[in-house]
Amino acid sequence: MLEQLKEEVLQANKLLQSSGLVKLTWGNVSGIDRERGLVVIKASGVSYEKMGLDDLVVLDLQGNIIEGELNPSSDSATHLHLYREFTSLGGICHTHSLFATTLCQNGRELPCSGTTHADHFCGTVPLARALNESEVQGDYELNTGKVIVETFVEKGLNPMEVPAVLLHYHAPFTWGESPMESFKNSVALESCAEMAVRSLQATELPLIPAHILEKHYQRKHGKDAYYGQKK
Amino acid sequence: MLEQLKEEVLQANKLLQSSGLVKLTWGNVSGIDRERGLVVIKASGVSYEKMGLDDLVVLDLQGNIIEGELNPSSDSATHLHLYREFTSLGGICHTHSLFATTLCQNGRELPCSGTTHADHFCGTVPLARALNESEVQGDYELNTGKVIVETFVEKGLNPMEVPAVLLHYHAPFTWGESPMESFKNSVALESCAEMAVRSLQATELPLIPAHILEKHYQRKHGKDAYYGQKK
Amino acid sequence: MLEQLKEEVLQANKLLQSSGLVKLTWGNVSGIDRERGLVVIKASGVSYEKMGLDDLVVLDLQGNIIEGELNPSSDSATHLHLYREFTSLGGICHTHSLFATTLCQNGRELPCSGTTHADHFCGTVPLARALNESEVQGDYELNTGKVIVETFVEKGLNPMEVPAVLLHYHAPFTWGESPMESFKNSVALESCAEMAVRSLQATELPLIPAHILEKHYQRKHGKDAYYGQKK
Amino acid sequence: MLEQLKEEVLQANKLLQSSGLVKLTWGNVSGIDRERGLVVIKASGVSYEKMGLDDLVVLDLQGNIIEGELNPSSDSATHLHLYREFTSLGGICHTHSLFATTLCQNGRELPCSGTTHADHFCGTVPLARALNESEVQGDYELNTGKVIVETFVEKGLNPMEVPAVLLHYHAPFTWGESPMESFKNSVALESCAEMAVRSLQATELPLIPAHILEKHYQRKHGKDAYYGQKK
Repeated sequence: MLEQLKEEVLQANKLLQSSGLVKLTWGNVSGIDRERGLVVIKASGVSYEKMGLDDLVVLDLQGNIIEGELNPSSDSATHLHLYREFTSLGGICHTHSLFATTLCQNGRELPCSGTTHADHFCGTVPLARALNESEVQGDYELNTGKVIVETFVEKGLNPMEVPAVLLHYHAPFTWGESPMESFKNSVALESCAEMAVRSLQATELPLIPAHILEKHYQRKHGKDAYYGQKK
Repeated sequence: MLEQLKEEVLQANKLLQSSGLVKLTWGNVSGIDRERGLVVIKASGVSYEKMGLDDLVVLDLQGNIIEGELNPSSDSATHLHLYREFTSLGGICHTHSLFATTLCQNGRELPCSGTTHADHFCGTVPLARALNESEVQGDYELNTGKVIVETFVEKGLNPMEVPAVLLHYHAPFTWGESPMESFKNSVALESCAEMAVRSLQATELPLIPAHILEKHYQRKHGKDAYYGQKK
Repeated sequence: MLEQLKEEVLQANKLLQSSGLVKLTWGNVSGIDRERGLVVIKASGVSYEKMGLDDLVVLDLQGNIIEGELNPSSDSATHLHLYREFTSLGGICHTHSLFATTLCQNGRELPCSGTTHADHFCGTVPLARALNESEVQGDYELNTGKVIVETFVEKGLNPMEVPAVLLHYHAPFTWGESPMESFKNSVALESCAEMAVRSLQATELPLIPAHILEKHYQRKHGKDAYYGQKK
Repeated sequence: MLEQLKEEVLQANKLLQSSGLVKLTWGNVSGIDRERGLVVIKASGVSYEKMGLDDLVVLDLQGNIIEGELNPSSDSATHLHLYREFTSLGGICHTHSLFATTLCQNGRELPCSGTTHADHFCGTVPLARALNESEVQGDYELNTGKVIVETFVEKGLNPMEVPAVLLHYHAPFTWGESPMESFKNSVALESCAEMAVRSLQATELPLIPAHILEKHYQRKHGKDAYYGQKK
C-alpha cells in the first residue's frame, strides 16, 4: 500500500541526514495520499542510516495506526493537524537545523533579504508564538500544530506561498506539494537562516525590494513560471 | 573479556571523528562493566582510523591495567573518578569539539535556550572552575575529575539529568547510561553550544520557559516518556 | 559538436555541488567556443548528481537553441550578455554560495584584505546595483547582465583582472578564460567572502597594502608570472 | 632517493585537502633530510587529487633543483630560509586555512585561550609584520622567510616551542620535527584560530592561566611527557 509515497518519504528522511540538516534523530518527513486520507511518517527514534520501508508508519488523519509495527514520530500530531487544516500540503518536514533553530531560539522571524529566499518563500517566514503552560501540559504536539495554523490565519498568510514556520524556542517546520518539496524548502530555509544569522552580527536584517521578491517568486511559482522543465 | 562493551567503545570512539567532533586525537570515549568494576578506554595518542580492539585498554576503578599493551588515555584518571563518584554512569565521552570548547575558553556555562537542549539536558550545563596552581601541579587529571564532582555537588545537580560539564579553559565531558549515549550527548552539547555561540554575537543568551524545558526533557526521559520505541 | 567544451562544462557544474558552493540547483556554469560563437550551458532545474551531457544546452549568442532537448538555465540571458560584452571570457559561473551571497544581501562590495584575494582578483570585487522596478519587470535576466557591464564600465574595471561581481540582493557571478577557471574564481570569491563576513563582526574590513596586492596578482597573472607550470 | 621522506611529504600534502585546510592549490608541505641537506617540496600549482611522487621536487638548501621535472612551489624560498635558520625543523606546512588567515588579515596574533592551544604551542602564536614595499619588490618569498625569523628573534621565541606564525595580510606557516608534525600543527592552529575568531565577536580574547598552559604543553612535550606511546 502506498509504495511510491513510502519510497519518497524514505528518501526524503535519509536526505535529512546526508544534507546535514539533522544530527542524531532530530527530524522527520511525512507525506500524504489525499485520495485515501492516509499519511506516511517516520517512526520515532529510528536512525536514518538503518531506516527501511518497515520503519515508516501509516496513519489516518485522526492518528490511528493503519500499518506499521513501530511508534510513529512523537511529532505526528503536529503533522496531522497541518494536513487537516492546510489542505494543499502533500509533504511536511521538521528539522532542528542549526541556523533556523538559532532564529527560533532568539524569537526572530525571517524577513526576505535576497533572491535565494524569494525563490522559495513569498515574503517573511513567520515566527509562531511559544505555547503557554496549559498548552504544553495538554496535548503538546497537537497544540503546536494549532499555534502554527493560528499564526498563518492571524497574519493572513497562504501556506503554499510561505511554506515554512519558525517555532519560538523550538525549531522549524516546512512543507510543500510533496515530501521531497518539503525537504527542499528545509534546505532553502536553513540557507537563508544561515545568511540571516551571519548578517545579524552587525545590523538589522536588510529587506529585499518588493519588486525583486515578486519577480523571483513568480518566475519559479507564478502562472507563467519559466524556471525548470515543462511538466 | 568484555567483548560487547569493547565493540561499543570502539564504535563510539570512531564516531568521534566521523561526526566531526574531534580532530587529530583530541577525544576519547570509555565504558564501564559495573558488575565486574572494569573500565574500557581508548589508548593514548592512537588515531581513530587505525583503531582496533587492541587499541583499547581495560582498567580497574583504581587505574590498574587489567588488559592491553598500550598506555591508556592520559585523561583516564578523570574518567575513573567520575565512574567512582557518579555511580549511574555507563559511559563517558571527552572531546575538544570547537563550539563547546569556545564556551569553555570564554568561561561560560550553557543555559537552556530551546528544545534541542531540553531533549538532552534538564537545565543549564554548568561550567566547572579552573584548577588552581597546586591542583594542576598535583595529580592534574584526577583533580579535573574532582572539580567536576565538586561542581555537581555544590549546584545540587543530578549527573544523569544534566549529563555534561564544561571545563573552564579546557573542553567538555559528557556521559550517559552507555558509551553510545555519552557520545550522543556530546553531539547534542556541541549543537547547542553552536547555537549559543552564534546567538552571543548580538545579545545575552535567551532562556527557554521552564514549562517547555520540563516537557521536552520528560517526554524523552520522564517516567511516562513516549519518545522512541518501547524497551 | 563541442565535445571537449561540453565535458568541461559538465565537470565544472558537478564541482559546484561537491565543493559545497551550491545546494539544490542554485547555480550554473557555462562555456563558450569563440570561433563558432556557441555557448554550452546547464539546463534549468536539473540536479547535479544526475546531470549528463544530455542535460547541457547549446545556444548561439542571440539565445537560439542550437542543440539540446531541455530548457536552458533561466539565467542564460545574463551569461549571453556577458559573453557579448566581455569578449575575453571563456567561461562563466553563477552560484548562491552563502558567504558571497551574504555580502550581496547586505549590499557590500568585497575589498582586498589579503593575498588569497590578491591571487585571484586585482582589487575590490564590485557590487552591482539592484535592478529598478521596470528593469525587473522587463527582461530581468538580460537586464541583470546589463547592470553588471554598467558596473565595470563606470568603475573602469577590466573584467579579466577582476573576474567577479556581487549582485545586490541576489548572488555572485564569476568568470575566467575557461569554465574551470570561472569555477575556481567562485571558490576563491567564497573563501574571501567568508573571511570578510567573519571579520565584519568586529570592525570595518582592513585593506591590504597596494604593493602586496600588486605582487600577489602579478606573480600569478603578470607578464613575468612564475606561479605554476610553464604552459 | 629519499623515498621515505617523499612518501611522507606526499601524504601530508594530500591531507591538506582532505582535512579541509586548503582549497584549490593553496598550500604546500615540505620535509628535509638533514644528513644530506636536501628538501622535498610540492611542485607549484599541482592539484592534490592527482599528485604523485613525480609531482615532488628535491632542492638543496640553496634552492638548486636536484631532482624533479616541475617547478617547485613558488613559496620554496620561504621554506628554505626557515630550514637554514631554524635548524631543528624537519617539516614545514603552509596553508591559507580560513580562520588562521582571517586573523592574519586582521593583523592579530593568537594568544593562548585554552588547553587545545597549550597542547601544541607554548604561548602566543606571533604575528609577523607585513613586508615593506622594497621587501615585496625584491626577493619576496625569501624576505617572507626573513621576516618570520626576525619575529622569532625579536620576541625571543623558540621555534620548536611555538611551531607556527601568522603572516600579516597573508596566511600561516607551521612546522615541526617532521612533515606530518607540521601538518598536525596546522590543524591545531586552525582549530584555535576558529575558536578565537568566534570569541572575538563579543570581547577581547581571554587568556589561559600560565600554570595550565605550562602543564598542557609539558605533558605532551616536556622531559617527563606522558601523553601518547613510548617511543
